[in-house]
Amino acid sequence: MKTRDKILLASLTLFNDEGEGNVTTVDIANELDISPGNLYYHFHGKEQIILELYAGFELEMVDILEAPLEQSLDAQDAWFYLYIVFEQIFKHRYLYHNLNDILQRYPDIDRRFGRLLDLKRRAASAVAEELVSAGVMTASERQLADLCDSVVLTLTYWLNYTGLRKDHAPNALSIHRGVFQLMSLVAPYLTDDFRYFYDECSALFDVLSSAD
Amino acid sequence: MKTRDKILLASLTLFNDEGEGNVTTVDIANELDISPGNLYYHFHGKEQIILELYAGFELEMVDILEAPLEQSLDAQDAWFYLYIVFEQIFKHRYLYHNLNDILQRYPDIDRRFGRLLDLKRRAASAVAEELVSAGVMTASERQLADLCDSVVLTLTYWLNYTGLRKDHAPNALSIHRGVFQLMSLVAPYLTDDFRYFYDECSALFDVLSSAD
Repeated sequence: MKTRDKILLASLTLFNDEGEGNVTTVDIANELDISPGNLYYHFHGKEQIILELYAGFELEMVDILEAPLEQSLDAQDAWFYLYIVFEQIFKHRYLYHNLNDILQRYPDIDRRFGRLLDLKRRAASAVAEELVSAGVMTASERQLADLCDSVVLTLTYWLNYTGLRKDHAPNALSIHRGVFQLMSLVAPYLTDDFRYFYDECSALFDVLSSAD
Repeated sequence: MKTRDKILLASLTLFNDEGEGNVTTVDIANELDISPGNLYYHFHGKEQIILELYAGFELEMVDILEAPLEQSLDAQDAWFYLYIVFEQIFKHRYLYHNLNDILQRYPDIDRRFGRLLDLKRRAASAVAEELVSAGVMTASERQLADLCDSVVLTLTYWLNYTGLRKDHAPNALSIHRGVFQLMSLVAPYLTDDFRYFYDECSALFDVLSSAD
């Protein structure tokens, strides 16, 4: 692994664990046991590190979000899909944890995050419309629009919300809980034939929670 | 109006308009056309101002949130009640706008906000259970618990979410949209006899939106 990549990985871990605002380039150098000068040779400051981390996050997220715009998902796929989106958010949770603060300090990320949010909403919409036309869900146009807003809002702020409730530190169960919370938003719109799907998800979630 | 109260009001307005992190005590003194020394006579720094603003916010919010724990609300009351909670949040939106950042910087507010969030959840729960026992809504215990989480999450992060979407600056319509978004979460659980309630709310929201 190249020094440059080691710096990026160590930064991501420190940002996620300590909060981006509490981590300096000196902390990152210390963590890697390299000199600040060596770090500076690769990145001229924290902003450059964050921009590069964000570029990597964005590339992966766009790939994920564009998938349902290109090919249709069935109910089972849609459920796995929520996990994939949530895991990507969890991997870069430092960004979501202090979202408005980071967007204020890095205008370049602000612009790009706005576009990513639009894409999130279009992906949610595409999946929902697909499920309606497959007879898995039934909902009016207005209900679908409100549901997509609730889904994107929950995706974006779920980790913050559980953090506020001091349930416990974000971990793998936070992802399950988040996905299950999203399922609870969708559940009322499942058609009778597919209601079992929510029940199976609830049962799975109970097993996962009790194993924690 | 006493100088002390003028300082609090000017601070609240500046925090809401510019973001708390971008406002200094010098900005507040300038806004009021008083000397920094005069301001310092009343408040020894920004932290003291924020703590006093928060104490006022908390006092009002606790009053609002305890109401449904003490007396029951019918469907109409519950709808107005959402407005009251949302308007209180809107009045102190600087706090919600950079919530995690402010909670990190002011541990005293962090502890107190955690308790307020619990109270928000208990209020949401009390209103929902009341509506179930009045036959306005029907839902299982698990559905109610998930619904209350979605309601509190939406109350807490709605203004941030609309801010991210760059729809436009928060204004009175943001409150209507927020309340309507909350209604969309509750709507699937309304019993047939009360479904008209959601339709009336939608119609009202359309009128308000087109008047904007």
